[in-house]
Amino acid sequence: MDKYTVTVSLDGHEKRVTCGPGSILMDVFHQNNIYIEAPCGGKGICGKCKVRVLTGKVSDITDLESKFLSQREKQEGYRLACMTRILGDVKVAARGQLEGAQILSTGLEYSVDISPAISKKFVQLDLPTVDDQQDDLKRLAHAIGIENPHIHISILRKLPQVLRDSEFKVTVAYDDNRILDVEKGDTSKKSYGVAIDIGTTTVVCYLMDLITGQQVDIISGLNAQRPYGGDVISRIQHAMGGSDGLNRLREAIVNQISELIKELARRNKISIDHIYNVAIAGNTIMGHLLLGVDPQHIAAAPFTPATTKAEVYDAHDLGLELGIATRVFLLPHISGYVGADIVAGILASGMDKNKELSLIIDIGTNGEIVLGNRDKMVCCSTAAGPAFEGANIRHGMGGVSGAINTVMLDNGNLKYTTIDNKLPLGICGSGIVDALAALLDAGIVDETGRMLDRDEIETEIGQKLADRLTEIDGLSAFIIVDSKSSGTGEPIVITQKDVREIQLAKAAIAAGIKVLINKMGKKVEEISNLYLAGGFGSYIDKRNASRIGLIPSQLQHRIIAIGNSAGTGAMLSLLSLEQYERTSLIKGMAEYVELSSTLEFQNEYVDSMYFEV
Amino acid sequence: MDKYTVTVSLDGHEKRVTCGPGSILMDVFHQNNIYIEAPCGGKGICGKCKVRVLTGKVSDITDLESKFLSQREKQEGYRLACMTRILGDVKVAARGQLEGAQILSTGLEYSVDISPAISKKFVQLDLPTVDDQQDDLKRLAHAIGIENPHIHISILRKLPQVLRDSEFKVTVAYDDNRILDVEKGDTSKKSYGVAIDIGTTTVVCYLMDLITGQQVDIISGLNAQRPYGGDVISRIQHAMGGSDGLNRLREAIVNQISELIKELARRNKISIDHIYNVAIAGNTIMGHLLLGVDPQHIAAAPFTPATTKAEVYDAHDLGLELGIATRVFLLPHISGYVGADIVAGILASGMDKNKELSLIIDIGTNGEIVLGNRDKMVCCSTAAGPAFEGANIRHGMGGVSGAINTVMLDNGNLKYTTIDNKLPLGICGSGIVDALAALLDAGIVDETGRMLDRDEIETEIGQKLADRLTEIDGLSAFIIVDSKSSGTGEPIVITQKDVREIQLAKAAIAAGIKVLINKMGKKVEEISNLYLAGGFGSYIDKRNASRIGLIPSQLQHRIIAIGNSAGTGAMLSLLSLEQYERTSLIKGMAEYVELSSTLEFQNEYVDSMYFEV
Repeated sequence: MDKYTVTVSLDGHEKRVTCGPGSILMDVFHQNNIYIEAPCGGKGICGKCKVRVLTGKVSDITDLESKFLSQREKQEGYRLACMTRILGDVKVAARGQLEGAQILSTGLEYSVDISPAISKKFVQLDLPTVDDQQDDLKRLAHAIGIENPHIHISILRKLPQVLRDSEFKVTVAYDDNRILDVEKGDTSKKSYGVAIDIGTTTVVCYLMDLITGQQVDIISGLNAQRPYGGDVISRIQHAMGGSDGLNRLREAIVNQISELIKELARRNKISIDHIYNVAIAGNTIMGHLLLGVDPQHIAAAPFTPATTKAEVYDAHDLGLELGIATRVFLLPHISGYVGADIVAGILASGMDKNKELSLIIDIGTNGEIVLGNRDKMVCCSTAAGPAFEGANIRHGMGGVSGAINTVMLDNGNLKYTTIDNKLPLGICGSGIVDALAALLDAGIVDETGRMLDRDEIETEIGQKLADRLTEIDGLSAFIIVDSKSSGTGEPIVITQKDVREIQLAKAAIAAGIKVLINKMGKKVEEISNLYLAGGFGSYIDKRNASRIGLIPSQLQHRIIAIGNSAGTGAMLSLLSLEQYERTSLIKGMAEYVELSSTLEFQNEYVDSMYFEV
Repeated sequence: MDKYTVTVSLDGHEKRVTCGPGSILMDVFHQNNIYIEAPCGGKGICGKCKVRVLTGKVSDITDLESKFLSQREKQEGYRLACMTRILGDVKVAARGQLEGAQILSTGLEYSVDISPAISKKFVQLDLPTVDDQQDDLKRLAHAIGIENPHIHISILRKLPQVLRDSEFKVTVAYDDNRILDVEKGDTSKKSYGVAIDIGTTTVVCYLMDLITGQQVDIISGLNAQRPYGGDVISRIQHAMGGSDGLNRLREAIVNQISELIKELARRNKISIDHIYNVAIAGNTIMGHLLLGVDPQHIAAAPFTPATTKAEVYDAHDLGLELGIATRVFLLPHISGYVGADIVAGILASGMDKNKELSLIIDIGTNGEIVLGNRDKMVCCSTAAGPAFEGANIRHGMGGVSGAINTVMLDNGNLKYTTIDNKLPLGICGSGIVDALAALLDAGIVDETGRMLDRDEIETEIGQKLADRLTEIDGLSAFIIVDSKSSGTGEPIVITQKDVREIQLAKAAIAAGIKVLINKMGKKVEEISNLYLAGGFGSYIDKRNASRIGLIPSQLQHRIIAIGNSAGTGAMLSLLSLEQYERTSLIKGMAEYVELSSTLEFQNEYVDSMYFEV
């Protein structure tokens, strides 16, 4: 069969790959590890996977595609990658989507006793004699003070030779009652672990020195499952569609983690065999997909996960290409929609140890909320939708290069900044919050969320900005960046529909907070700390978050951004077995409140819908 | 490359296989699972692998080969399979070596509480609701009363579907804290295990019902490692010779066990997935080879095994093609030459629970001896050599069809019986003991072990039998069966060298017993029971064993044959976790006495050399 060459230029790089005739361009990307935005999972319904075909023959434009492309885009050769078939050698340009998302590698500072699951010890054994015929394993076990160790068969296989090659001077890696490895000579200082935060969008791996507790390196990538859907529900749908959908998702994340860890080892010149422990936090769906366990029953009532408990597996059992001795510590989930990432966040916040009442909000695909202290903890997940991650927002995008991340009114002039100071390509979560706050301040959006017509605007600032009002596809829209200043050649706008998306999302979060406060029998004023987790939490403008009603105004000055608290919690769990065990205590303590079934939530949701003006 | 056809006729069957030009006939046998006697492992030094080439072209006879073949054998086309290369299509005949050895499947009767490691329970779970979103695993664990179960990833993967396909009515297989399997509906009565005795010569598998404790079936085969050497030392040499010798031995036994168990499942119409536990006893070398662990350091001083402890592995970790949940319970060894087979024998004998002093003798490739009671236990291994298994005996053979198994003097006439009443092909251990006792009784062999010349014989019976004396290859020999009555067309004899082999072997056993008795500070009369283990122990004539000085004459009437006590001990360990745990207590209690280093043993050995006349 003939092969066509596809030359992809993205972000200044060019990559050349081949494919069979008639291949869908999106599939070609996936097969070659080129990640482009596709929140809908390639169904042709989100319109995010636009690429420009520069030369070569591709299939004709479809009606579905046509809806997402402006006349000018069509003229310039723009297409949706998920709808375009390759019919010859082609050159295409995709936009800036190869870069890693901005990662929040550290949140708060922590002090933790370094006592990981793994121990290493250099021992010099007595040589066997006819009068001391103790077997090799017993001799070794005795030296490290373990009575009855389990040993992996492959380590047992090499044991006799390693002992004799090193004159019985060896380093043993072991945990509780298992001998994990035996090495010649003294390698006792070479002990590493990797903490992993598997986000729906981004995967972050932290290489940690398990002797010093130092973070040695960090690496991240967009979640390799993204081609199969931008949010957890699309992923579940993919897992359900056809017999190997689930396995495809499993392999994607397993291979990605293997590769990321290998890269960490390579570039830090450490042996992969010296990475003994891996701690993983991720939401419940990510946890199921990593295990290859069908998450479909989480998707529909009664939202039942297959498992939520903390579990330790051999890396090889998970399919990870790591050392034979490597063990993976999975953090526990609380429920189908309050996952290990939140448990890790609670651990990182220290909420479970404090007397004062704290609130954690983690806004991502869902908005998870936890309220509590050392005595009691309640949590919920709101279907806030991924609006704050830029999904379902016309020009929304993740917090990557070229995204508008702040918007402000300066003497009636609208100003913005972009990530990496690049030409704006779209707008990310923090930018959207800012923009909406500005529109409220300017009186362009009213308390019901309606974008006013030019002649309805009453404020002076509003009048000044009225020229930016336009109409797109029959919807009112407000231009943040005009086509001349934009990196896309098109204006970047906030539409009426975008405002509604944000409005629904913020109402869900606000209502969730109220339900939890009621559940605890507390008042909002009694909350001492509001921990905002995730990138959005770090970049968001606190006043504006309060302005749009996303967080209670009383807590505006009690906000503490805890960054990637899932990653931090995973790191803590890696460095200290006690901290890892604490995650199960947190899980056991946290009471999950199902919002979907309660009238109370519905009432609060409706009450929270409006904006304050 | 051309292929030649080799047509092998053995034991009435014909098997046709192919091989490349120049292949060694023995290798062709091995590759096609045709087992023929080859105690030396195919080195051309034992002369046991005789076959007759009926038609076709093979390599010329070598000088080495020539030594083992009589003129008549050469004329008739006899060759050693290990020295003969295939140079065309050939037909060869091998003798009766495909049959299974006689297996002693039961020894004593035992009563044991049936409480295996595995439990099965049928449970009907509450269906999940929005108000009860407990995850599937927790729901299941709760029903069987395990707080924090470990579950194999593949079982977790099927859990959601199994639960929903069966309306949450399932049977759980579990042990201590692991969920091993989940099945639709009520399968709680379907629970099986296999106890295995891996002998150097023979592998026996007992299929046990873990609910009733009944033995359902038994299957056996010659150890598939035999082509690589008849005794443990040849096997170790094979494991050391070249990079994959060890793996070849491991695969041979692992594949054999998989196949035997599958055959048990097939012919008893049970699912392989319902075989949950396997318990294995074998000597220390067999244990190492099963694990793929190099046993070479057991072969030479200080005789150090890699491991001796009891260990439980997943069947899949060992490479066994069994159910995903199947766990293998390896019985512990005591030292390099006192293995799990002996530990199992101690368990079966109950010696460790009794107040009275007991002696166990297991005569096989080595002669292992244990002396003790519930307070103290000492054990040793004597390099008795495999003479009692027919090795290094000119016409010696295992206890298989056609072997002379009893010899007696009846009014001065020599009589014999053979296994299965077939024409005699050789002589097995019990026959050799009988024959030697007869020669001593008849005054044909003197107290020093010398076979007298015709004119030296003084007894009447001896005179009557003197015609049977002959000379073979310059050695005195006594004809048991003349060429006309023999199944081989040759006389079957006991040579002077055969007498010496037995003499050395019995002296080693007798000296070992004396050393242990001294070690315990006891007298031979204080021993209440003498347990004779193994096939040899069951078939041996007690008087004759005492007559040749193999066992103390005082104990002749205290002998209890315990048959395949290794198998029995494995069965007990399978049926009861407590019994399995008892094997580690036995291991911990038994003191190993190294004979090779003691002057005391050497003195006793010399003292035991002569016969009583």
